[in-house]
Amino acid sequence: MQIEVSLGIDIGGTNTKFGLVDHQGKVYVYNTIDTKAEQAAEKLFQRLFINLNRLLNQHPDELQIRAVGIGAPNANHYTGRLEYPPNLSWDIVDLPEIVHDHLDLPVAVTNDANAAALGEMVFGNAKGMKNFILITLGTGVGSGIIVNGELVYGHDGFAGEMGHVIVERNGRKCGCGRLGCLEAYTSASGVVRTVKTLLADSDKPSELRDIPIDTMTAHQIYNAAKNGDTIGIEAFDTTARYLGEAMADAAAYFSPEAFFLAGGVAQAGEFIFEPIKRYLEANLFGIFKNKIKILPSGLPINNSAILGASALAWHELEA
Amino acid sequence: MQIEVSLGIDIGGTNTKFGLVDHQGKVYVYNTIDTKAEQAAEKLFQRLFINLNRLLNQHPDELQIRAVGIGAPNANHYTGRLEYPPNLSWDIVDLPEIVHDHLDLPVAVTNDANAAALGEMVFGNAKGMKNFILITLGTGVGSGIIVNGELVYGHDGFAGEMGHVIVERNGRKCGCGRLGCLEAYTSASGVVRTVKTLLADSDKPSELRDIPIDTMTAHQIYNAAKNGDTIGIEAFDTTARYLGEAMADAAAYFSPEAFFLAGGVAQAGEFIFEPIKRYLEANLFGIFKNKIKILPSGLPINNSAILGASALAWHELEA
Repeated sequence: MQIEVSLGIDIGGTNTKFGLVDHQGKVYVYNTIDTKAEQAAEKLFQRLFINLNRLLNQHPDELQIRAVGIGAPNANHYTGRLEYPPNLSWDIVDLPEIVHDHLDLPVAVTNDANAAALGEMVFGNAKGMKNFILITLGTGVGSGIIVNGELVYGHDGFAGEMGHVIVERNGRKCGCGRLGCLEAYTSASGVVRTVKTLLADSDKPSELRDIPIDTMTAHQIYNAAKNGDTIGIEAFDTTARYLGEAMADAAAYFSPEAFFLAGGVAQAGEFIFEPIKRYLEANLFGIFKNKIKILPSGLPINNSAILGASALAWHELEA
Repeated sequence: MQIEVSLGIDIGGTNTKFGLVDHQGKVYVYNTIDTKAEQAAEKLFQRLFINLNRLLNQHPDELQIRAVGIGAPNANHYTGRLEYPPNLSWDIVDLPEIVHDHLDLPVAVTNDANAAALGEMVFGNAKGMKNFILITLGTGVGSGIIVNGELVYGHDGFAGEMGHVIVERNGRKCGCGRLGCLEAYTSASGVVRTVKTLLADSDKPSELRDIPIDTMTAHQIYNAAKNGDTIGIEAFDTTARYLGEAMADAAAYFSPEAFFLAGGVAQAGEFIFEPIKRYLEANLFGIFKNKIKILPSGLPINNSAILGASALAWHELEA
């Protein structure tokens, strides 16, 4: 059987994932390889295509690749280039040029959070929505913003950096060098920093006191919250307050139909969704109250990056 | 001579302005009438069209109206309706329906700040720009946000309310009922409130001490600043700080090519533009630094509302 697929590639600091995905979001071929960012980017793609061709040869169906979508940190949609990506030792990489050594097909490029938003719109819980914001709460905090059914790239291609709006003037130091960014409070390590503060500021008993702060994970805090641990619950409440306040401002700009929450911190479920809803509503401009949905991502977390990159490829092909 | 024009209408709490404007932004017929919001909205349009037809009959050229654009507070682009407009006693008004009693032409509707942004793009300093934000600093603070050459209306038509992002948590009471909105600090009355605080917090000499605070205007503060008055200069610096900080957050969302400043407070020229530039750059996320222009509106202030409404009509007709 001949099946049309797009090749979705997600380049991360440690691993690069790729997969072949049809129009309905079904994944036919999938693999993860080491990024080996200390080598040139060309080497990564050489290994990727050798790997991909082996998988294609083994596959019972004839998978016809129609387009390529790539999600990567600091990837610029307009230029197709990676520009000084964090956690990768490359400086500027022209992704379409490298892909064209292997495949003569359209190549679309964007950052991982933007790809995730398109994945949500094409395959996930945002099907049919024209205006929404997806926030990824992971190692960093990113966002993909959809207006009128299209990603907001802005003038230079780098729009949608909700993780770097200031939520606390002169607040916590952020990885970007500034003070008080949303990311510093609501990334996975942001939640751990909040626990650290809460533990220092009170002498409430907490199972989290037994975990060295340097090794503590957001998942451990979630487990503590599930056990009724006051500090654990409070940490997610504080995280949610910063998110709810920032989302209320975002609503004033965008009037979205929904916010989607993805990434590790969003896995805390009601410990984060319930207080976000409460803080969002408490801070919204009047005309937006009780209108905006807060939803989890509808994509499986282990495939979401591939599905996002693949959705980008399909979306651009149909544009 | 036969000339194609659009009818631009700007409905305000006290006055309603209208004009006939060609594709190049030339205004052929222009008038201002009382809104008389205590009467039904139908009465306003009856008077407007009687007045317009009289002017059309007197005009030497044959002005052929092709479309109608209306800017008004709380006007919803999607529904064409005014919904509980502030300062007007109407509840819900279906504007296209009322216009169609007089003219069988396409009618487009939006709020005044959105219309101003389109006016800037079609006739003003934003010609050729695809991504920018216009901020109106007047009685209120509004914004019109252009992404990919189109206004951001959002899911419900009410997007672009930059005046109601929170710039000071638990700060000044805003007219919208919440605390700390940008509007409470950077509207014309916001600048006066800042002067009041500055006068109370110091005993610096200032010519502004001679003006009763209830009658003080932003223009008087501008005159004081021009005379070297420390309090006057400081008031614009504080206003600019709130604007620059909010604009840095807006840049993280939108990555605009430029910000445009319009309205009364923007007339303070370098007393407001210079510190805004400084505070914006100090607060920007790294990748946006030294890229974003801050520009004055290119539309004459007395005609800007008409030109904005007319630009909306042309823009929709060509969409």
